[in-house]
Amino acid sequence: MSTQRSEFTARYLVESSLPMERVAETIAGEQSSGTFMALPGETDELKQRSRARVTRIVELESVTEPSLRSAFLQRHGGSDNFNRAEIEIAFPVDNVGANISTLLATVAGNLFELGEVTGLRLLDIDMPSDYAKRFSGPKFGIQGTRLMAGVHGRPMIGTIIKPSIGLSPQQTAEIVDSLCAADIDFIKDDELMADPPYAPFDERLKAVMPVIQKHADRMGRKPMYAINISGSIDEMLSRHDAVLAAGGTCVMVSVNWVGFSAVEHLRRQTQLPIHAHRNGWGALTRHPQLGFSFTAYQKIWRLAGIDQLHVNGIRSKFWEPDDSVIASAKSCHTDFAGVQPVMPVFSSGQWAGQAPDLFQKLGSTDLMHLAGGGIIGHPGGIAAGVMSMREGWEAAISGVSLESYAHSHPSLQGALAQFGAA
Amino acid sequence: MSTQRSEFTARYLVESSLPMERVAETIAGEQSSGTFMALPGETDELKQRSRARVTRIVELESVTEPSLRSAFLQRHGGSDNFNRAEIEIAFPVDNVGANISTLLATVAGNLFELGEVTGLRLLDIDMPSDYAKRFSGPKFGIQGTRLMAGVHGRPMIGTIIKPSIGLSPQQTAEIVDSLCAADIDFIKDDELMADPPYAPFDERLKAVMPVIQKHADRMGRKPMYAINISGSIDEMLSRHDAVLAAGGTCVMVSVNWVGFSAVEHLRRQTQLPIHAHRNGWGALTRHPQLGFSFTAYQKIWRLAGIDQLHVNGIRSKFWEPDDSVIASAKSCHTDFAGVQPVMPVFSSGQWAGQAPDLFQKLGSTDLMHLAGGGIIGHPGGIAAGVMSMREGWEAAISGVSLESYAHSHPSLQGALAQFGAA
Repeated sequence: MSTQRSEFTARYLVESSLPMERVAETIAGEQSSGTFMALPGETDELKQRSRARVTRIVELESVTEPSLRSAFLQRHGGSDNFNRAEIEIAFPVDNVGANISTLLATVAGNLFELGEVTGLRLLDIDMPSDYAKRFSGPKFGIQGTRLMAGVHGRPMIGTIIKPSIGLSPQQTAEIVDSLCAADIDFIKDDELMADPPYAPFDERLKAVMPVIQKHADRMGRKPMYAINISGSIDEMLSRHDAVLAAGGTCVMVSVNWVGFSAVEHLRRQTQLPIHAHRNGWGALTRHPQLGFSFTAYQKIWRLAGIDQLHVNGIRSKFWEPDDSVIASAKSCHTDFAGVQPVMPVFSSGQWAGQAPDLFQKLGSTDLMHLAGGGIIGHPGGIAAGVMSMREGWEAAISGVSLESYAHSHPSLQGALAQFGAA
Repeated sequence: MSTQRSEFTARYLVESSLPMERVAETIAGEQSSGTFMALPGETDELKQRSRARVTRIVELESVTEPSLRSAFLQRHGGSDNFNRAEIEIAFPVDNVGANISTLLATVAGNLFELGEVTGLRLLDIDMPSDYAKRFSGPKFGIQGTRLMAGVHGRPMIGTIIKPSIGLSPQQTAEIVDSLCAADIDFIKDDELMADPPYAPFDERLKAVMPVIQKHADRMGRKPMYAINISGSIDEMLSRHDAVLAAGGTCVMVSVNWVGFSAVEHLRRQTQLPIHAHRNGWGALTRHPQLGFSFTAYQKIWRLAGIDQLHVNGIRSKFWEPDDSVIASAKSCHTDFAGVQPVMPVFSSGQWAGQAPDLFQKLGSTDLMHLAGGGIIGHPGGIAAGVMSMREGWEAAISGVSLESYAHSHPSLQGALAQFGAA
């Protein structure tokens, strides 16, 4: 098909008992101009303009058990051979326009429910840069985040306010005070904490911001506090404004639940970096033959305009293999159609000990490294906890082993003694 | 634990190689006041106020293969026995408040990623009605939808504009004209169709609404056209207003992609029923040990304020077993904490033939029954297609077999001949 139309592509991992060519054509049809009725005269023009096309099929090894059940396939006879393939489909840009919900309805949408497939995962998307430009994209990204926090040449060391929920505004301010006294770079709310009656958003902000300002005056840079503003559209906008007015430098949002249109709306008006908490993401990715790869996921959120995105941690408390975590972080750094990179945020079960592997595997310090227990549970206290994280990264960057570096760095020594056996 | 606090509950299907009591306590801790640090004085008060509690564990049969992999469990020794259980957790209402994104961060959130579990699915949620009242809820629901469409005592018969994408405004208007001439009750846009350059939203609306108005004058009731307004917050609000001003009676949204905060925002200002298209839902539900049950999903969307929600169809082109489809529709009808029911929308592979089974299994006519090919592909044309759907339901409601009823109803006869063998 020769065509001058501008296209974006989606790549899938597909499993089906049917021939892969047929499945690929079904997908292309369903997600564009499928289910045709004859229209006088216009049919060819319509097809030329709107029909998606299959651009690649790479057959993989087949399996004998379906990954996901399909009542449709069972009604049509069942099978004991399920083909797998990577397929790529090209869609006309004009089918969608600069509309994330329609982009997702097109590249994902009903596909996961197709009776013909026993597995379907969106592996990647790609698009021309002049199409990507029509979306907002990150306003701050990695460089803007670093500028705002005054942290350069090393990772941003951070933590999460714990307990997750239950602290009064005054208790929160006291913890923030201890963390800032330790020269921390970054603090975030827990995603469970938004606006409870015993610690309303406004009161927390009022209690916390003077503490941060006090330390900023002392430190010559302002610790970045990602305050959870998740809520209704009006709440998020007014909370963004309140954070800004109070001198805050970041807002956090549970992106999967407030959704793409809400984040885009916030992005258009934000004057602060958007810290994207991906809680819920596991439901979309944990089965390898279903849902979304992180590569595709982070691209779509970059289009929507987030600046920082969670990627779990290596040797974390979560299910995810370390290789997958590293691949996620790398994808946040990778160029995508001219859309600027976002800051990967490592957390869960983190302490100074992961620094060398992170640096070696990632080859970059453009990241946030968040430790909860790894800072607060340090035997020398919070200040030693933060220091141990920084020392871990100093060792990693200078290529010295943690054990050697710890000889002259007691905070790191304490961390190794406390967390190193685990 | 004796307590006066108001609570909502979440019920899960969980799989883990660890003892289920421990997993349940981990979940309750992680999703409330977990990862404790000692706070002078306040700890007991905090626990009493904010800690979630495990209220029920029902052990199920264990399995020998994990449903989902966990690098965390593998690092900690692996297993060849994976326990399954249904567990229920009670959360304090005050942890969350009337905030859907925080409700989801709490009952779902990071749980899907827990290293301890090899399966986790949110089966159901429940809450006191005075908590549910704090959310918007449906503005129209089933009764409001029926009033707006002037259809009572039978299902609303509808169709989807096809091809999915590619039609000009004029072509769309011509198809709408044919459908309305057949006295159809309901028409919806395809979810792929939003605002393409060859058929901009405004022009489609301008072309279509006079056609609908013309037929409304003739019919004495106005066919309901669910126009896809999915897009940015500003686009959705202005398109809602445009639909309203043009005399339209429904708006459609791809709810998973615009997201909860966007739908809530629309709900607060809408003067039209919200037709919730759930494309993408398969990614959240298709693996039986992961994600969400439809029961939980529809409850949360009811809180957000949708009025009509897709449930697939029986004997459809999708993967879903018929029993699951029926259970979904029933859950839309079921009382939930005083939040009004929503209209289930059956579609995909539908024609008159499913009417008797639908009616028998659902015991209700409160539904939309959408047929694409089952109307447009009828050998007697569109008018006969619509008539055949209505006749199918007349037969179903009066308890006469389709075959008998078809003797005196040629449209149904034609449908049986065309689609009955499939």
